[in-house]
Amino acid sequence: MSMIPPPASVGMHVSDVDTPALIIDLDALEANIARMQAAVSGTAARLRPHAKTHKSTTIAHMQVAAGAVGVCCQKVSEAEIMADGGIDDICISNEVIGKRKIDRLAALARRVTLSVCVDDPANVTDLADAAQRYRSDVGVLVEFNVGMNRCGVETPQEVVRLAEIIAGHRRLRFAGLQAYHGSAQHLRHYEDRASAISQAVAKVNEAKTYLTRSGLNCEVIAGAGTGTFEFELASGLYNEIQAGSYVFMDADYGLNENRDGRLFDRFENSLFVLATVMSRPVPDRAVVDAGLKSFSVDSGLPRLVGHPSAEYVRASDEHGRIAISGQSHIKLGDKVRLIPGHCDPTVNLYDWFVCIRNQVVEAVWPVSARGATV
Amino acid sequence: MSMIPPPASVGMHVSDVDTPALIIDLDALEANIARMQAAVSGTAARLRPHAKTHKSTTIAHMQVAAGAVGVCCQKVSEAEIMADGGIDDICISNEVIGKRKIDRLAALARRVTLSVCVDDPANVTDLADAAQRYRSDVGVLVEFNVGMNRCGVETPQEVVRLAEIIAGHRRLRFAGLQAYHGSAQHLRHYEDRASAISQAVAKVNEAKTYLTRSGLNCEVIAGAGTGTFEFELASGLYNEIQAGSYVFMDADYGLNENRDGRLFDRFENSLFVLATVMSRPVPDRAVVDAGLKSFSVDSGLPRLVGHPSAEYVRASDEHGRIAISGQSHIKLGDKVRLIPGHCDPTVNLYDWFVCIRNQVVEAVWPVSARGATV
Repeated sequence: MSMIPPPASVGMHVSDVDTPALIIDLDALEANIARMQAAVSGTAARLRPHAKTHKSTTIAHMQVAAGAVGVCCQKVSEAEIMADGGIDDICISNEVIGKRKIDRLAALARRVTLSVCVDDPANVTDLADAAQRYRSDVGVLVEFNVGMNRCGVETPQEVVRLAEIIAGHRRLRFAGLQAYHGSAQHLRHYEDRASAISQAVAKVNEAKTYLTRSGLNCEVIAGAGTGTFEFELASGLYNEIQAGSYVFMDADYGLNENRDGRLFDRFENSLFVLATVMSRPVPDRAVVDAGLKSFSVDSGLPRLVGHPSAEYVRASDEHGRIAISGQSHIKLGDKVRLIPGHCDPTVNLYDWFVCIRNQVVEAVWPVSARGATV
Repeated sequence: MSMIPPPASVGMHVSDVDTPALIIDLDALEANIARMQAAVSGTAARLRPHAKTHKSTTIAHMQVAAGAVGVCCQKVSEAEIMADGGIDDICISNEVIGKRKIDRLAALARRVTLSVCVDDPANVTDLADAAQRYRSDVGVLVEFNVGMNRCGVETPQEVVRLAEIIAGHRRLRFAGLQAYHGSAQHLRHYEDRASAISQAVAKVNEAKTYLTRSGLNCEVIAGAGTGTFEFELASGLYNEIQAGSYVFMDADYGLNENRDGRLFDRFENSLFVLATVMSRPVPDRAVVDAGLKSFSVDSGLPRLVGHPSAEYVRASDEHGRIAISGQSHIKLGDKVRLIPGHCDPTVNLYDWFVCIRNQVVEAVWPVSARGATV
C-alpha cells in the first residue's frame, strides 16, 4: 500500500534483511493465535480480535480461520481496508462522529456485517439518518464506562435511554454493550487486574438488569484485552473478547505478573524490530539505526534481545543508544532484535512485515491499514 | 505516495477537513522559512535545512528557493526521495552502514551532489569500494562528538586519522566535520545552550587546528539545530547550519527560553493536528480522535490551542483525553487544533499535509518521505 519498497524478499536469510525492519516470528505468531482461540473456544464467548494491533488483512484472516467471529477496528478507514481485504464481520469498537465518516460507515454496512459504538443520542440520530440514506443496517453497541474514564455513558439509566433510542430506528439494531476496561490491562499485579474487572462485571450486570427490565435484549457484551481477558471470560457475562496485542505481545505487556508473581508469559513475543549497529564509538556505547521513527516509546523503550550486558537507553529520531556494561561482543554492522515497548503504534510506523521462520524470510506482508486513522 | 486518501481537497473550508489531519498554516510556514534564511544570509554560513523534519520535497524546494544550499537527510531512502523530487545537493548527516545501503548511496551519488558522515575507518573503505564500483564521487564528513555522546569520534587525533583515510581514496573527498550537538537543542535556559555550544566550538576549533597542521583542508563545519543555531552562527566557525524544526516548531521547542527568560518565539507554530471531539461524556472530560497514532508523545503531549481551561492530558492509541476545568464551550463534533509535542516523528505518521491559508485549504501535499527509515 506504499511506495516504500520492502526491506526484504522471500528466501532471504534474516541477516540480509535491510534495517530498520519490522520482523514477525511466524511460529510464535501462529502459536499465539492458536492459544487465544483455544482459551476462548472452551467458553460461551466468541473471539473478535482487535485489528488495530496488526492492521493486516492477512493476520485477520488467520484469526478468522482459527475461529474468530470477525474483527474489531477502531476507525472507519481501518474497517474499510479490512472489508476490502475480505473480512466480512467488523465491529468498530469506537464512536464515529462527523458526516463524512458516518456516510462512509453507512455505505460500508451495505457490504459487510458492521457494528459501531455510541455514547450520545444525537450521534444515534446521525447514524440512523445515514443508514436510511444508504439503505444499510448497522448494529449499535452502547459504550458503557466501566472504569477506564474515557468514552462511554456513566449510568445504567443512560444505557437504557440510548438503547431505546437505537431500537426506535428501523435501520439500527441495538446490539449490546461495549464495556472495555482499557486502564486495567497494564495493572502489573494479578489481583489488581482481577479486582478492576470484577468491578466492571458488577457494573455491566447492573446495566444488563436495567435493560432486561426495559424489555431490551442485550445480545453482546464486548470488551477485554490481552491483560485481562481471562477475567472477562471467567465472568460468564462478557461474550465477545476483543483482545488484540496477544498476537505480538510487547515489552510493556511482558511486565504484567501472573497470579504466582512470575511475568506474564501466556503468549510469546512474535514482533521485533531488526536494527543495525551503525556506530560503535566507545566501549560502553553502541548506536543502532532505529529510533523514534521505528518505535513508539509511549510505553517505554524497546528491549534488546540476547545481549544481557547491553540495554537500549535512549531514542532520538533515527538513532537508538545502547549502553553496554562490561563485556559485549556487539560490533559495527551487527544486526540486533528489539522488542517494541508498545506493539500497536509501532506497527503503525511500518509499511511491511517481514515474516521469518527458521531464520529465512517466508513472506512479506503489507501493513494493510498503516496510517488509517481517519 | 500512499493508498490512504487525503482528508481534504483544495478549496474546502478548514472546518470541513476530516480528522485526524496534519495541518500546515502556510503563512506561518513561509514566515519561518524566510526568517531562518534571513538569519543565515547575513553571515558567512550557508543554510542546509534538515529534511527529516518535513520529509516533503515541496518544502525542500521552498527552502532552496529562499536561499538554502540543499538539504540534509538522515537516511539513504530519504535522500533518494529528495533526489527523485529534484533536490540536487544532499548531505546525509549520519553514518550509513551495510552493503545494500552503501550501494544505494554510491548509486545515488551519480545523480546528485552527495555527502555522508563517518566515524569508523572500515566504513570509509566500504564507501570507497562502492563509489569505485558505481564510478561516483562522494563527499565525506567526519562526525565529531562535541557533547551529544551519540555517534562520532572522540578526539582530534581520530578526526585527522579518518580524514587522511578518506583523502587517500580517489572517489571520496574529505569534506569537513559533522559537529552537531543534539542534546543542547532542548536545554531550557539560554545560558545553558550558549555554554554547551561554546564547548562544542572549542572542540571543533581544536580539531580544525589538528587538521590544518596535517595539511588537510576542512571546508565544511556542519551542525546546529533550531535551539542553538544563533550560537553556531555567532561562532564564525560553523558554516553549514542544519536546523530543521524551525519550519514547523513544536510544543517542546516552545518551552525553550530566550536570553530575557521569555519563551522562544523566533518562529511560529505552523504545524497542527486537527482533531474532532468524539465523546463528551461528563462535564470535565472530552475525548478527541487523535492519540498515539496521530502524535509522537516522546517529548510530551500535544498542546491544545485556544481553549485555556482545557488540556490534552492522556493519549491512548486512537483517543486523546481532554481535561476541562471550569467552563468550556467544547462540544461533541467540534474540531480543535493541537500543537504536536515533537514535530519530526509526528510528521512521519501522516501521508498528507493539508495546507491552510485564511481558513481555506490551499494545497494538499504528500509527506513524500514518510516511512523512509531505511
